[in-house]
Amino acid sequence: MDGNARLGRIATGHGTVETPVFMPVGTQGTVKAITNRDLKASGVTMILANAYHLYLRPGDALIRDMGGLQKFAGWDGPILTDSGGYQVFSLGTLRKIKEEGVTFQSHIDGSKHFLSPERAVEIQRNIGADICMCLDECVPYPSTYEYTRDSVGLTSRWAKRCRDAKDGGPFLLFGILQGGFYKDLRIQSARELVEMDFDGYALGGLSVGEPKSATWEMVDTVIDTLPHDKPRYLMGFGFPEDIVEGVRKGIDMFDCVIPTRLARNGNLFTQNGRINIKNAKYVRDESPVDKECGCYTCRTYSRAYLRHLLVSHELTSFYLNTLHNVYFYADFLKRIREAIGKGCFDQFYGAFNARWKGGETQDEYSACNG
Amino acid sequence: MDGNARLGRIATGHGTVETPVFMPVGTQGTVKAITNRDLKASGVTMILANAYHLYLRPGDALIRDMGGLQKFAGWDGPILTDSGGYQVFSLGTLRKIKEEGVTFQSHIDGSKHFLSPERAVEIQRNIGADICMCLDECVPYPSTYEYTRDSVGLTSRWAKRCRDAKDGGPFLLFGILQGGFYKDLRIQSARELVEMDFDGYALGGLSVGEPKSATWEMVDTVIDTLPHDKPRYLMGFGFPEDIVEGVRKGIDMFDCVIPTRLARNGNLFTQNGRINIKNAKYVRDESPVDKECGCYTCRTYSRAYLRHLLVSHELTSFYLNTLHNVYFYADFLKRIREAIGKGCFDQFYGAFNARWKGGETQDEYSACNG
Repeated sequence: MDGNARLGRIATGHGTVETPVFMPVGTQGTVKAITNRDLKASGVTMILANAYHLYLRPGDALIRDMGGLQKFAGWDGPILTDSGGYQVFSLGTLRKIKEEGVTFQSHIDGSKHFLSPERAVEIQRNIGADICMCLDECVPYPSTYEYTRDSVGLTSRWAKRCRDAKDGGPFLLFGILQGGFYKDLRIQSARELVEMDFDGYALGGLSVGEPKSATWEMVDTVIDTLPHDKPRYLMGFGFPEDIVEGVRKGIDMFDCVIPTRLARNGNLFTQNGRINIKNAKYVRDESPVDKECGCYTCRTYSRAYLRHLLVSHELTSFYLNTLHNVYFYADFLKRIREAIGKGCFDQFYGAFNARWKGGETQDEYSACNG
Repeated sequence: MDGNARLGRIATGHGTVETPVFMPVGTQGTVKAITNRDLKASGVTMILANAYHLYLRPGDALIRDMGGLQKFAGWDGPILTDSGGYQVFSLGTLRKIKEEGVTFQSHIDGSKHFLSPERAVEIQRNIGADICMCLDECVPYPSTYEYTRDSVGLTSRWAKRCRDAKDGGPFLLFGILQGGFYKDLRIQSARELVEMDFDGYALGGLSVGEPKSATWEMVDTVIDTLPHDKPRYLMGFGFPEDIVEGVRKGIDMFDCVIPTRLARNGNLFTQNGRINIKNAKYVRDESPVDKECGCYTCRTYSRAYLRHLLVSHELTSFYLNTLHNVYFYADFLKRIREAIGKGCFDQFYGAFNARWKGGETQDEYSACNG
């Protein structure tokens, strides 16, 4: 048995997505530095956009009037939108949480806004998302048991209001589990959401600064409470080592800014781990980033040239590096699906961990959401 | 008769280039924000790189050891390199000009460097340029007659040393005319260079802050002194209106940072003039930048989306905008060549000027070199 690793399919209004899947993050309606045709050519099937960002700019009504984000952004595949909950709590300032919803100030211009569960669904409906997320409260790490308990209650009540607001809308709606790092609260959150029968379940409130062991403990805690026939989404993860671990534990969906954000800093993924192309040792390295990679960057350019572009602050560097990392992730997930399909994911997992060295740089990226 | 407009071909070690031609500027070994495949797809045939920048970073010896710029940068078409003269005078600090050459401090780290005519040719040879430029002194505008006269003498002596340094090298070598805005000095410069029999002749020291009428007066002054069977290159130009004017006066080659630099500021070219995509009136404009344009940007995205990307500071904005402007220029030159080929350039010129409105923004870009 390959642990809990599993194959699946999510049918959306813009095509069916095979899982396990990784979604590159297109915070403001584009994956940073590259284009839709690059995503397609890389094998990306679904992208994530942020309702919070798009609500503030250019506005969800504008996107609706322009025919939805797919038409506006020229992306014809499925889109999942984060509800905005995470961003309100990580980017918004002077936020006030009440039963009705949350008020916050825009990180762009300080203007005041109010986000209710109903409005969160409306925004995502206007954006035209194929998969919408319930509004949740993402509690800080660490939080007290009492605060977290009350917050789980609020998140469940908000989830119910989101479900009611869906009102037959032509999109899938996922509930988001919270509960901090308290096993009983995580289970309570899972049970309350499963009771409401969502189209999928996301694990939220993780990757907020906790040790990795705590993350996986929470995943293990709830995974069997979640229905077998619904997608499970680990929000804001992650590194390749997180993805194989998550897949092994029964997770189907991932998103993270890691491949794109790291690319912009010159951190590029290879089959053996992560390299930083800025490193002086690549100054005359004529080999591609990854000999096994089929992306345009690796088929065309040497490490030496990519290093030159980065140290010379050339915009083309962002493009080529992002292209590589996005391709790497899409290809990585494809190989994971193939391994599961062949019934040899355990071997894949073992071989990956034996080969994978993590990265040259030890920089930490605790907050993976955009 | 179509004025002096003419068709030509320049045979290089990396293919033949049809003229009139416009070269996008790839200062540091890449055209900013886009890639080689984008250049090819846009119809670009030759690019310009800067010897000054590449000498400082990553170094001409490194590029030589990596197989030349074509191999290093993955561009298999012809490359023209500016000698570094213009950059030494515009970017280098504490420069001292002597008969032997020029000492200057790097704009990157303040390190001291010496550039002689012989070294300028060696750098360009190491880079692997198909067309190299002689080292010249680019005099400021305005300069006195006496200073300019002495400078023309120096530029001619340097040109002769460059010609000698070529030493059978497998590249074309162009002389650069100087002479400020003094007709007799311009003619003297032209005669002295023509005497040395270069593979082509460039008009340097223009686009340095002078009124446009003075530019064209200098072009008119020297054009008949230049041999009919050699390419004529107007360095650092320009806007579309400059290009049609230059072609009409018998110019064959152009380069300028205008299409790429303006793209990064949201200034996009259309058949009717230049628009700034940041303008609020495009916030809900579903039409492409230019309905007649065949570039990926215009075939895929609306003005509204491109505006959103720009105001949201998305890197993808630089990519898509640059792609459009580079395509626009390549297509524009193609149409100019077609018009000349059909013997109707005068009509093209008239129709262009009747239609062309310049631009929404009145920003000035006097220094076009990168």
